[in-house]
Amino acid sequence: MTVADLTEAELIARVRAQLPPAPPWMIVGIGDDAAVVEPERNRVDVLSVDALIEGVHFDRAFTPPDAIGHRALAVNLSDLAAMGAEPRLALLSLALPQALAVSDFDAMIAGFTALAARHRLHLAGGNLTRSPGPLVVDVTVMGTVKPRRALLRAGARPGDELYVSGTIGAAAAGLQMLKAGLQARTTTDHCVHRYLYPEPRVRLGSMLGRNRAASACMDLSDGLADAVRQVADASGVGAVIDIDRLPIDPEAREWFVSRGLDPVHEAVTGGDDYELLVAVRPRTRSRLAAAHRHGGVPLTRIGLCTNDRAILMRRTAGNAIEAQPMPRGYTHFR
Amino acid sequence: MTVADLTEAELIARVRAQLPPAPPWMIVGIGDDAAVVEPERNRVDVLSVDALIEGVHFDRAFTPPDAIGHRALAVNLSDLAAMGAEPRLALLSLALPQALAVSDFDAMIAGFTALAARHRLHLAGGNLTRSPGPLVVDVTVMGTVKPRRALLRAGARPGDELYVSGTIGAAAAGLQMLKAGLQARTTTDHCVHRYLYPEPRVRLGSMLGRNRAASACMDLSDGLADAVRQVADASGVGAVIDIDRLPIDPEAREWFVSRGLDPVHEAVTGGDDYELLVAVRPRTRSRLAAAHRHGGVPLTRIGLCTNDRAILMRRTAGNAIEAQPMPRGYTHFR
Repeated sequence: MTVADLTEAELIARVRAQLPPAPPWMIVGIGDDAAVVEPERNRVDVLSVDALIEGVHFDRAFTPPDAIGHRALAVNLSDLAAMGAEPRLALLSLALPQALAVSDFDAMIAGFTALAARHRLHLAGGNLTRSPGPLVVDVTVMGTVKPRRALLRAGARPGDELYVSGTIGAAAAGLQMLKAGLQARTTTDHCVHRYLYPEPRVRLGSMLGRNRAASACMDLSDGLADAVRQVADASGVGAVIDIDRLPIDPEAREWFVSRGLDPVHEAVTGGDDYELLVAVRPRTRSRLAAAHRHGGVPLTRIGLCTNDRAILMRRTAGNAIEAQPMPRGYTHFR
Repeated sequence: MTVADLTEAELIARVRAQLPPAPPWMIVGIGDDAAVVEPERNRVDVLSVDALIEGVHFDRAFTPPDAIGHRALAVNLSDLAAMGAEPRLALLSLALPQALAVSDFDAMIAGFTALAARHRLHLAGGNLTRSPGPLVVDVTVMGTVKPRRALLRAGARPGDELYVSGTIGAAAAGLQMLKAGLQARTTTDHCVHRYLYPEPRVRLGSMLGRNRAASACMDLSDGLADAVRQVADASGVGAVIDIDRLPIDPEAREWFVSRGLDPVHEAVTGGDDYELLVAVRPRTRSRLAAAHRHGGVPLTRIGLCTNDRAILMRRTAGNAIEAQPMPRGYTHFR
C-alpha cells in the first residue's frame, strides 16, 4: 500500500494517531486552517525552518524512513539549541512521492515524533501534498528563550576562547560508510548512527543561554570550518584553531586514515555533526562547568578568537608552529 | 545566469536587498541560526504552513515567477484570514532547480515581498537549498489574534446562515484558460489574473474576528464544496446551498458555458479562489455590515446550516425545489 492509496485526511489521521495529547497552551492544533497557541510569558519566540530533500540531504537507498523523520527534526532542534532556546512546537510540511509505502510514511512520522517527545516539542500543524519528484520534509520549529539570553553568532571578541561540544567527524565518516555500501553497519556502527540519528544539543544550548556563558554560538550543521568562519565573520574577528586539540571521533579518524584521507580535513569540513561551536570570554570560563555538567556532553577548547581577521588552523611541529588557512566548508548550493 | 552560478550567501543577499527595514519587534532577523521575535502583548499566535510545488500546484510554462512568489504567500495569508488573524511574519523555504534563472529567482522574491508589504508581513528567515526536481516554495506564516477571537471551522449551529466573500469560479476558469494556451491573456484577463494573483481576504477575516460576527470560518483554497463540507463536518451540522444565490463570477460563467461545462459544478469544485466561507448566527447578522464595509469585498448569503447532516445544493424550478448532494471538492492527494 502506498500513500497514493490514501486520502489526505487518512494520512493526517495516521499522523495524529502517533501524537501525545496536546499541551494546554495549544488552543487549536492540527485540523483547522491554522494552529493557535498561547505565547509563553516573559519569553521571546525563536523560529527556524529547514528542509531535507531526497537526493540532496539524504538517499533513501541507505537512510531508513525513521532516520529521515528524526534528522528532519534534529536539524531544526539544533538551530534552536544554537540560539539557547527551548523547543515548543513544530509544523511539518511533507511532499510525498506517490510510490512511498504507507509503512515508510508511518516510520518517518515515528522517527519525528519520538525525537519530538524527548524534547517536549509538540506538532501543531503542517501540510501534506504529493511530490512529482523527490520526498521533501520541510520542518518549521518554534522555541522560546528569555529576553536578551538568545545566543547569537555575533558577539565574539578577540581573546574569546572557542569550544566545541562532543566530537567531530563521526557523521561524515558514517555517511562515507553508507555510501561505500556498508548498510549492514546501519544500526550498530557508532559513526553510521551519528549520521542517521544526530542528537541536537538542546540542553547544552539552553544551559549556555541561561547562565550567559557564551559570547557567540552556532551549530555545526555544515561542519566546524564553516561554523568558525560564520561566527568569526558575524563577530568581526579572526580565529586560530589548534589542530591537536580537535576532538575528532576516534572511530571516524580510523575510518578516514583507512581510506587514505586526511582526518583533520575530513573532520573540519564534514557536515551533519550538529554539535555546537561556542565562544567564551576568558573571565566567564567558569560558567562552562555547569553547562558541561548538565548539558550531557563534553566541551573541548579548540582555539581562540583573534584581532587579525584570518581564519587559521595551527599545529605544533617540534619547536615550530605551522599555520594554514582553515579549509572552506561544505556549501549547499554550488 | 542561473542560481547555480551563485552561492547560498549571494542568493540570500539578493533576498535581503528586496526587504524593507525590520520592525522593532524583530530582535534577530535573517542571518543567524534562527529568528528571534518579541510576542505581541495580549494576543495569541496563529501559525500555518503551505507549500507550492511545481508540477502539482503550478506550471512554470504559464505561471510567471512573480505570480509563484505571490501565490505561495497568498495561500498562507488566506489561512491567517480564515482564522481572523493579522499577519506578522513569514519564513520562506525554497528548493531551487539548478537551471532556475537568477532573474526568475529575483522576480519570485519580488512577487512575495510585494504582497508581504501590502499586509505588513515581515520575512523573518528561511532556508535555501537546491532541488534535484521541481521548484518547491514552502512558506510558514505567523499572525496574531486576540484570545478567544480566532475563527474556527467548528462552531456553526443549525440555523446559522452561510456567506461567501467575493465571487467564485474565476480562478478555476483562469487556470483552464492558461491550460488552453491562452497565455496572451495573462496580464489583462480578469479570470487569469484571479488565478495568478489571488487576493487573500485578510482584512475581512480580521474584521469578522474582531466583531465576533462569525460562528465558523474557512477559506476556499480547495473550492466552495470542500469548504462547506469541512465546516459542516467540524461543526457537526449539515448544509443546504441555494444554487441560484451562488456569486459565480460572470466572466467565469461565460467561459464555462462556452466550453460546454456546467458552471455551477465548475465554480463549486474549482479551487484557488481564496475567498472566505462564513457561518453567521441570524441574531448577529447585523455585525456583517461592518465586515462588509471595511473588509473591501462583498459577502453573499448562499445557504443555511441544518440539523440534518446532509450537504445539499438546491434550486427552485417553477414550484418545485430540486435538491442534489454537493459534489466532492478537489483532493490534493489521489
